[in-house]
Amino acid sequence: MSDVARAAGVSSATVSYVLSGKRPVTAETRESVHSAIDRLGFRLNPVARSLRTGRSMMVALVVPDLANPFYALLARSIQDKLRGRGYHVVVSNTGAQRGEEEALLQEAVHQRFAAVVMTPFRLAADAFEMIRGAGIPVVVSADTPFDGVDLVTPSSDQAVVDALTHVAASGRRSVGVIAGPLDVPGGDPRLDRIKTHVAALGLQVRDEHVVHGEHTREAGAAGFEKLLRSSRRPEAVLCVNDMTAVGAMDVAEELGLEIPGDIGLLGHDDIDIASLVRPRLSTIRYSAREVGAVASALLLEQIDGRTQPRTVRVSAQFVRRASL
Amino acid sequence: MSDVARAAGVSSATVSYVLSGKRPVTAETRESVHSAIDRLGFRLNPVARSLRTGRSMMVALVVPDLANPFYALLARSIQDKLRGRGYHVVVSNTGAQRGEEEALLQEAVHQRFAAVVMTPFRLAADAFEMIRGAGIPVVVSADTPFDGVDLVTPSSDQAVVDALTHVAASGRRSVGVIAGPLDVPGGDPRLDRIKTHVAALGLQVRDEHVVHGEHTREAGAAGFEKLLRSSRRPEAVLCVNDMTAVGAMDVAEELGLEIPGDIGLLGHDDIDIASLVRPRLSTIRYSAREVGAVASALLLEQIDGRTQPRTVRVSAQFVRRASL
Repeated sequence: MSDVARAAGVSSATVSYVLSGKRPVTAETRESVHSAIDRLGFRLNPVARSLRTGRSMMVALVVPDLANPFYALLARSIQDKLRGRGYHVVVSNTGAQRGEEEALLQEAVHQRFAAVVMTPFRLAADAFEMIRGAGIPVVVSADTPFDGVDLVTPSSDQAVVDALTHVAASGRRSVGVIAGPLDVPGGDPRLDRIKTHVAALGLQVRDEHVVHGEHTREAGAAGFEKLLRSSRRPEAVLCVNDMTAVGAMDVAEELGLEIPGDIGLLGHDDIDIASLVRPRLSTIRYSAREVGAVASALLLEQIDGRTQPRTVRVSAQFVRRASL
Repeated sequence: MSDVARAAGVSSATVSYVLSGKRPVTAETRESVHSAIDRLGFRLNPVARSLRTGRSMMVALVVPDLANPFYALLARSIQDKLRGRGYHVVVSNTGAQRGEEEALLQEAVHQRFAAVVMTPFRLAADAFEMIRGAGIPVVVSADTPFDGVDLVTPSSDQAVVDALTHVAASGRRSVGVIAGPLDVPGGDPRLDRIKTHVAALGLQVRDEHVVHGEHTREAGAAGFEKLLRSSRRPEAVLCVNDMTAVGAMDVAEELGLEIPGDIGLLGHDDIDIASLVRPRLSTIRYSAREVGAVASALLLEQIDGRTQPRTVRVSAQFVRRASL
């Protein structure tokens, strides 16, 4: 601290005010202190290091819906892995709004965040060009491909085949899907995977049995109601995630429909709620903890110098409970 | 932008690189641009404003447990209220660890956050002196009193009386409490409120029927097991929050205990999970959405110039469902 003070021609107390923000200082003083820190390559602690590099020790996790416990668990997993390296994880919620997604990436550049982990919802891959240009490591967690950035993505074909095999074995034939929204780059890969595998198992997804909406409980309720209004209702409904499946259960209970007797239901993710609802929700487990661990590892590799993008697949599993 | 470039003696492109972080620039260039921005009192947009003031447009929400949906909802509520003023909300999880709570407050000062909303868990009021000294507005959401900062706190005596009245009316007399940890400044005010009101309603809380632990599902399960091992088990158990009550339900189900037949159960908060579990959880509703709205209003008052600390009470209500 006293070296910096000498180099900047100010008192140690002044350096401390600049670093801590405890007292207002003039712009000139602030700049001469920062300049002295730059010259001395100050390495004493993370704050000084981040002042020197212009980078904070904060890692931004940007997610579409913090009310979905999948993302809270993802945040904790990343935090557990990065804490040992001195990083703080801050979580931002975009509400699946493209404008918010773009604004938060800009803010991450402006704040000189150390790195960004993001589940984009309405962004295309080129949205990451600015942040990559700023030299900030990025890891994307998504079902759809993203070129030019590190990607954590599910390997879930086998889980979908297992779930559909179980649907077929239970004597059901007509499958409905509560899918994600239509206005998303790359569409809904979870819907695509179901469509890829149904025919081989003797099942059918009729066009009127595919409904689209956000990944929320409310959208799941609305989608399920729409499916029930179709001319012949499906015998099993596969949902884009557990939250939408819980919304479907709300409607089933309201209408006195028995699950799985009247209609089978499958979620995706296996958040805690899946085993708390009654009947317990059958689902495709995609571990937020494992996704977070992989994302953290990729991010540290980048911080340590790797520049070539990598894709890592995290395998998903069919979990049979009572709803299907 | 061109005014800044002229004043700093650099090109507009360079100013843009400094503002966006798109290209690396030397420390001297960065400083001359920032200095020009300071001199010109640049007000065109939030980024420029934050450069001028040294403050970011980020508001930190610091919470003990992001896996508790109460805090995810609190985050969304604050975000909804502050978005219109150009602020971004970032959420940090302390895991109820005092070291993390302190580190995140320091980081908020270092990053020049615009404001901090925090639910402290193991911090005392003096922990906020540094951040207040840095001129950063703070709002605390807590059950315990915190001097010198804005406070949002529940008004829940009536709700507790209503819940206990219902316990008494259902013929139960012996009440157990799954309370918060013992090593917390201010203790557990939810336990204190129960103890204040039991006697007047003809109820009894025996010493062996008070157990302490974290505010998590796991701690709730452990606490409930401990209560069941007491010489005479309580007829109703009141939990510090809904997550601990869900942990108690896990154990009850495992052991084949009927709720509410064998033992009544009450939560606190009324998160979504309370109405998803079976039997539906009776609870004391404390609206995260309302707490967030009040905290945001207090914060904006401070940003707009109020300096005298205020305390606002948000009323809680007993919600009778099936578990009690």
